[in-house]
Amino acid sequence: MRILIRNCAVLPMTGPQDFMAMGDIAIQDNRVCAIGPAGELKAKGVLSADWKPERILEAAGKVALPGLVNTHTHAAMTLLRGYADDMPLMPWLEKKIFPAEERLKAEDVFWGTQLAILEMLKSGTTCFADMYFFMDEVARAVELSGIRASLSRGLIGIAPNGKQALEEGVAFVKNWEGKAGGRITTRLGPHAPYTCPAEYLQSVIAHSDTLGVGLHIHLAETRGEVENLRSTTGKTPVQYVDDLGLLQRPVLGAHCVHVSAEEIATLSQRKVGVAHNPESNMKLASGVAPVPQMLKAGVKVGLGTDGAASNNNLDLLQEMRSAALLHKVFTEDATVLPAYQALEMATIGGARALGMEKEIGLLKPGYQADLILIDLEKPHFCPRHDLVAHLVYAALASDVDTVLVSGQIVVEQGQVVTLAEKEIRATVEERAKRLVAGL
Amino acid sequence: MRILIRNCAVLPMTGPQDFMAMGDIAIQDNRVCAIGPAGELKAKGVLSADWKPERILEAAGKVALPGLVNTHTHAAMTLLRGYADDMPLMPWLEKKIFPAEERLKAEDVFWGTQLAILEMLKSGTTCFADMYFFMDEVARAVELSGIRASLSRGLIGIAPNGKQALEEGVAFVKNWEGKAGGRITTRLGPHAPYTCPAEYLQSVIAHSDTLGVGLHIHLAETRGEVENLRSTTGKTPVQYVDDLGLLQRPVLGAHCVHVSAEEIATLSQRKVGVAHNPESNMKLASGVAPVPQMLKAGVKVGLGTDGAASNNNLDLLQEMRSAALLHKVFTEDATVLPAYQALEMATIGGARALGMEKEIGLLKPGYQADLILIDLEKPHFCPRHDLVAHLVYAALASDVDTVLVSGQIVVEQGQVVTLAEKEIRATVEERAKRLVAGL
Repeated sequence: MRILIRNCAVLPMTGPQDFMAMGDIAIQDNRVCAIGPAGELKAKGVLSADWKPERILEAAGKVALPGLVNTHTHAAMTLLRGYADDMPLMPWLEKKIFPAEERLKAEDVFWGTQLAILEMLKSGTTCFADMYFFMDEVARAVELSGIRASLSRGLIGIAPNGKQALEEGVAFVKNWEGKAGGRITTRLGPHAPYTCPAEYLQSVIAHSDTLGVGLHIHLAETRGEVENLRSTTGKTPVQYVDDLGLLQRPVLGAHCVHVSAEEIATLSQRKVGVAHNPESNMKLASGVAPVPQMLKAGVKVGLGTDGAASNNNLDLLQEMRSAALLHKVFTEDATVLPAYQALEMATIGGARALGMEKEIGLLKPGYQADLILIDLEKPHFCPRHDLVAHLVYAALASDVDTVLVSGQIVVEQGQVVTLAEKEIRATVEERAKRLVAGL
Repeated sequence: MRILIRNCAVLPMTGPQDFMAMGDIAIQDNRVCAIGPAGELKAKGVLSADWKPERILEAAGKVALPGLVNTHTHAAMTLLRGYADDMPLMPWLEKKIFPAEERLKAEDVFWGTQLAILEMLKSGTTCFADMYFFMDEVARAVELSGIRASLSRGLIGIAPNGKQALEEGVAFVKNWEGKAGGRITTRLGPHAPYTCPAEYLQSVIAHSDTLGVGLHIHLAETRGEVENLRSTTGKTPVQYVDDLGLLQRPVLGAHCVHVSAEEIATLSQRKVGVAHNPESNMKLASGVAPVPQMLKAGVKVGLGTDGAASNNNLDLLQEMRSAALLHKVFTEDATVLPAYQALEMATIGGARALGMEKEIGLLKPGYQADLILIDLEKPHFCPRHDLVAHLVYAALASDVDTVLVSGQIVVEQGQVVTLAEKEIRATVEERAKRLVAGL
């Protein structure tokens, strides 16, 4: 389908200088084919004279930017949103989350993931990296919703079903890689160094090489986990997985809160993608990841929400704002993580962390048409001194008006057109009761 | 007017045990006259059999709670939203904000304040404490918008117009105290210890005694300010103003970021209301106020947004969330500032900080009918495991459906009915250009 979006501000994230106050964007099938000043695409020759849009989106008063990339979540954990709060990570996991998750059935994950996608699309996220189980259900929800995702079956090596999980993870990659018109990509998902013994990780690495896919792993989320690993192996999480050769594969490392300068150098050298989850790390009191230092060292840092049980939403606009504010106060330097850099982390930074920076994360001819239109006609965007600052420091999920993924319109006037919101909310409400009953 | 709000969840903030899953609220003129289980107000005799509502608000799927109280802002600074970001406090003030503020005219403040009130009402704030200048204009905007406010003319003792400002501040109190049907209360607003010499503060205190009003002052916002005051006077900001007797008056102290355990004890003993502004303190890298310690010591802590130039919105729901998350990570304790306590700070805590806890901050018969209805039928509130956690950790300004202040409906279906939004946005947009041109 050929879509013309016209008369909007355009923030392509290819550099601050490329901002356009009034532009047009032409989309052909799943890709952006031209961007330029409003009304001039044909005159300038960037679009051939006989190109005719099948659909025109009038976008005056809005700004177009690349869709946001959520680099770390456990989507179906929406089922447990608000079920256990104000607790530290380990008791929260062991006493509350794991017992409820044991009751999860495949269909729960299908519905919980749909709820998550509903929320992500409505808040401008067009791609997410997920690690969970019953991943066929997650892929099914991704397929029908129209969102893009990098999916991995979580693998806990020390669990009784560790071997079976790995088989499922491998089968999942074989079944789903490149599906949904290329919107689904896959990874293997070894949960964390503290849940995956060395031999197990070696087996996962061998499979990833055979399959030609990357990995998604939690790294150095809590101080306790780092200390435990050091006392049993003498190594930090980053050293531990690097010594196994894991970081020589395409790796998405979630959290990386407790990492030293030396480990940051390793993350940079190995081109590890880091998923920074400021709000989850704040809520669980895990700590503050040294993101300004990572960015300075050239580490590919994206933003993630983590699951809705520790956040408790999947709103990347909020995450971006929290990141920018948190690092300023934590470093006692108000110039740290300025607005444009925060917006980069939420878009092209996330794309880089997922190794997808040639396809998504920018508005650019040839790139996937994953983009969002934000309605600027709101009190909190007034006056228009600085649009980038407004997007980072004042925008709300409810300002997202239109969302396209791979050239398909999936949100219009703030409503997700591919999913049945009311049915999803009612179904999740019912299923969630069973999960926590008596716990 | 008699209004009946029916079939909503009710979170009166009188204690977690008082939550009602389905309740009715009766309002007579400007006060709540009855609250009880849905459909039972008359049967239980809390409402006389012949009480007839003139207006019924059907509120199924919504939750009613007390209106939020913003304890510290400079409302008209919306004019400078996004004009200067990612800078430390002092250069930000001296190089950017003050030069632009010098150009401010009375009418600018009128329009900028209307924009602020628009944003505050839409995000559930029903009362705010403001310190700025051209305060007659602020009061005029408060009067016509229907919001409640505690207003003070900011007084900079070291400024050439310090004496004149105090005269204006005194005149403002005389002209406006108790106006707008009691919605406007007033204070004197000595800006800060570092801008007000001792004799000036003594004069302000004497006037406050004569007038019988409280004070609004910035205290210990930045480390530098504390060090400077200590090097010139040998005292910390709290000691300094306490030694002058200022804290023996009803005082609202904004920030209190850099305060010692001893100063916290003083704040508690003197019953000082503290306005905690986590997002402004984060954005300007001022530091993290020891709020958990203050609450433990019994200090009356409310939440504030500060001005929109350092936030950059006036959204108290976000402020509440940021407070809860920030103090968890900063103390490395996920149990700190649990959801209910954060919600208390935003409601009754703010009312206490303003000395208005007998009138606002709770939903209770006899209290002012300052209340908000939040629409719960949103993906991010699903499933309904814990409404309080949802409100603190997942709610968005756009979830605010209805707002009443002093028994008057000021927001309906998310729209402010007392103000002309489009005209305000257009006017502020124009006026803001003049303020920053060439700076």
